[in-house]
Amino acid sequence: MRPEEEQSQCGVPVNLDASPGCEFCRQSGGEVPWRDEKCRVVLVADPDYHGFCRVIWNAHVKEMTDLARDEQQHCMRVVLSVEQVLRRVLKPHKINLASFGNMTPHLHWHVIPRFEYDAHFPQTIWGDRQRSAPPAAPAETGLQLRELLATMLARNYP
Amino acid sequence: MRPEEEQSQCGVPVNLDASPGCEFCRQSGGEVPWRDEKCRVVLVADPDYHGFCRVIWNAHVKEMTDLARDEQQHCMRVVLSVEQVLRRVLKPHKINLASFGNMTPHLHWHVIPRFEYDAHFPQTIWGDRQRSAPPAAPAETGLQLRELLATMLARNYP
Repeated sequence: MRPEEEQSQCGVPVNLDASPGCEFCRQSGGEVPWRDEKCRVVLVADPDYHGFCRVIWNAHVKEMTDLARDEQQHCMRVVLSVEQVLRRVLKPHKINLASFGNMTPHLHWHVIPRFEYDAHFPQTIWGDRQRSAPPAAPAETGLQLRELLATMLARNYP
Repeated sequence: MRPEEEQSQCGVPVNLDASPGCEFCRQSGGEVPWRDEKCRVVLVADPDYHGFCRVIWNAHVKEMTDLARDEQQHCMRVVLSVEQVLRRVLKPHKINLASFGNMTPHLHWHVIPRFEYDAHFPQTIWGDRQRSAPPAAPAETGLQLRELLATMLARNYP
């Protein structure tokens, strides 16, 4: 899929204040169950981590402290809304939250449901692999996750 | 140093709602330049990562979404105050923020200043080591960091 098609599919321009060559300025980053003018929630297609989400700030901003105070709060409220949905639907053993941007310095948060039997637990998903990935979750779980992400975020941030 | 001595040194009890065997209920977790009733900022003694800080919630809570809304905001404001101080004093290439708790399920945030020449860049510090650690920062940088953490947090959260 070409970048401009993804932008069209995404519904809002993702390249506000875009930086040439930045992956998250050019592309939505995956399936987008919810977005507003400031940021978007993306379902990451990771075969090891069903339910792995990212919250990507739309504008090309490097650090949380480059945002205004109300933008920081908005960003974290969206991140924690995603955490809440993941906990409700998947009941993970733990939630992992992280914002690095060492390779793609465009503000984004990883929100990852972790299970004791997943591929890296108790290591971070960037650490040494511990075992094979568990079998894929049933299709209805994915559907429930998409629906609840869309409805809960639309309710909190209409 | 025994846990009870650390608690005494820390100034406030760190074992509110303590969980038996939890490292962050028993110990402060390092040098504490600032703390309040809810959380504490800890300087991590990591030879690879000068300026590595943690923000540790005092009570034994597992996830951010186990906190009340105003507590979530307080926690993130402290995390981002630390980010701001690290950026001002150390001028890192990037800040890394993460809350995992897979091994110690007691809410804590890692706030890590990253440099292009550090031991793991551009990987996370939990990934594959890329090179030797850079030389230790001068003593006055550490002193400046401690002072600014204490004064800026005391100003924001008196």
